[in-house]
Amino acid sequence: MSVPEQNLNPNFSKKNLGAIKVADLFAGIKQGNIASLSQGITLLESELPEHTEKANELLKLCLPLSGNSLRIGITGIPGAGKSTFIESIGKTIISEKNKLAILAIDPSSSLSKGSILGDKTRMEDLSKLSEVFIRPTPTSGNLGGVARATKESMILCEAAGFNIILVETVGVGQSEIELHYLTDIFLLLLIPGAGDELQGIKRGIMEMADLILVNKAEGENANAAKQAVKQLENATHYLQQNKYGRSVGVKSISALQNIGVIEIWEKIKTDLEMWKNNSSFNDKRKDQSVFWFDQSLNNGLKNIIQQKSDWKKTYDQLRTEIESGKLHPFIGADEMLREITGKSN
Amino acid sequence: MSVPEQNLNPNFSKKNLGAIKVADLFAGIKQGNIASLSQGITLLESELPEHTEKANELLKLCLPLSGNSLRIGITGIPGAGKSTFIESIGKTIISEKNKLAILAIDPSSSLSKGSILGDKTRMEDLSKLSEVFIRPTPTSGNLGGVARATKESMILCEAAGFNIILVETVGVGQSEIELHYLTDIFLLLLIPGAGDELQGIKRGIMEMADLILVNKAEGENANAAKQAVKQLENATHYLQQNKYGRSVGVKSISALQNIGVIEIWEKIKTDLEMWKNNSSFNDKRKDQSVFWFDQSLNNGLKNIIQQKSDWKKTYDQLRTEIESGKLHPFIGADEMLREITGKSN
Repeated sequence: MSVPEQNLNPNFSKKNLGAIKVADLFAGIKQGNIASLSQGITLLESELPEHTEKANELLKLCLPLSGNSLRIGITGIPGAGKSTFIESIGKTIISEKNKLAILAIDPSSSLSKGSILGDKTRMEDLSKLSEVFIRPTPTSGNLGGVARATKESMILCEAAGFNIILVETVGVGQSEIELHYLTDIFLLLLIPGAGDELQGIKRGIMEMADLILVNKAEGENANAAKQAVKQLENATHYLQQNKYGRSVGVKSISALQNIGVIEIWEKIKTDLEMWKNNSSFNDKRKDQSVFWFDQSLNNGLKNIIQQKSDWKKTYDQLRTEIESGKLHPFIGADEMLREITGKSN
Repeated sequence: MSVPEQNLNPNFSKKNLGAIKVADLFAGIKQGNIASLSQGITLLESELPEHTEKANELLKLCLPLSGNSLRIGITGIPGAGKSTFIESIGKTIISEKNKLAILAIDPSSSLSKGSILGDKTRMEDLSKLSEVFIRPTPTSGNLGGVARATKESMILCEAAGFNIILVETVGVGQSEIELHYLTDIFLLLLIPGAGDELQGIKRGIMEMADLILVNKAEGENANAAKQAVKQLENATHYLQQNKYGRSVGVKSISALQNIGVIEIWEKIKTDLEMWKNNSSFNDKRKDQSVFWFDQSLNNGLKNIIQQKSDWKKTYDQLRTEIESGKLHPFIGADEMLREITGKSN
């Protein structure tokens, strides 16, 4: 099978974005055109002011077409075999006529700069398929920004007809917590010797996961994997059900030898179906909506001062006084807030 | 020497705060009364709405009297001997007729709930002295909130005549980064076997420190400490000077046996004097001021919607629509922001 041309170069130059009409981009996305989708995401990620308005316009057009995918979060320490697992489960997913989008949040990829090529290489088989879209989320901004960029990319992917979205993140730092606000089900990938490995994973994440997978349960590792599953079952046994009425499952798999992966996909589908029938699925989505409302509001409020010229002028004046030591920052902030709320002193 | 009564119970009941007049509190603080200082900090920390206004009033009265202390940040992994070091250097500091305030940010203390007693016990000798004020920062809020609480406590301590302020934080998580925005000089405490220990310390912190101390350089550890100093000197040798023109120093000490601690105090004084004579001291304070301006502004903006009844009403309406799935959170946030800026659609 030949590699779809659009998959070879998903990152379009920002230079070309200026000439593009949002309506054309949207039409392309709606038709499932991967080139348009890639270009749309690049537009969303652009920090150039002239792109922001277009990006928002595109997002609003796509919103009514979004929301209907199943969103699966996958995290794990480096070396847990996330890419191999995604390759393996990804093939199962598309064998059932699904369209699969893979969004990778990798804080380290911004260092190597080769993240796109890296992700393509990591998921060699999947990247060749036209029903699979692979996209790394750039991590130049702060973490909140990355999560938002991913959330927005999801909306575009859903508008383009992708009905299964995998969000992958390295399980170090805080990004895995934001996965909670992005996805419907949360998988944590570990390897045998989990006792040691767990030290790199914050406890809270185990409690946040819906499903813990002990990967690399193959050959000499098979016994160690069994033991790790037992240990993890013990460790999670006494965790209460989370607020969505879910308990943590633990399974061993070998992504490399494709052992147990189909069963995981079946379990994911069964669990999601069950959660849709009770209120678990909707309750989580509702919490996510409120989170994204507050998050967007906070982001917007940070920029609000720059948007209004009289506010910006006051801000700059106050900042100058503060820098020169004439004004205390707390007092300056109070003055700025009074101007915004229109309250007198 | 008997324990000053006010030091035994620095945390006043919040119940009594309501009756207190801010002017009386301020008068007490200005006279260096520890009881008033403690009560003032409790007022700042209170989250009760009826205390917020009083707290702001008190803060504004104290601000003109603040800013003249030397602020020293101390961080290190648990077990590095921070308390012993502070006991040791604290005695040296007050032997020179200084008034010393110690503010401890300990994320773990909120779990044990015995933090005040704990800190008193940890610094047994210092806690008995009337020229020393020891106060843990409660960590109930988020980390930004903790840093702000510490910043505000510093202002009250300075108004009460404390001219040396030690801010202590456990070097795990993010709190040590906020130390950078709180203090004039930043000490990192390690112990021999630093190679292993450093794994618990983020790399960025080494680059942020002004002075790395290898503690417990005593008895059988003496050689290991020497080696650790060499390793750390090598590791920091190629770090560029930071933006304030400072390089990282490395020294070994034994806080327990009081070896090298007086020399550290002399170095701190010499360094700070030098930084005051070039622009390093002021440049850092200027950056801190801008940081606290933006920080206070962001905090204030988060609360702004709750302050204005018509904004609050819109917020609640939008949130209800979002929860019911009728409105997308991004669109809701946009509408809210438009109301705040007074922009039409």
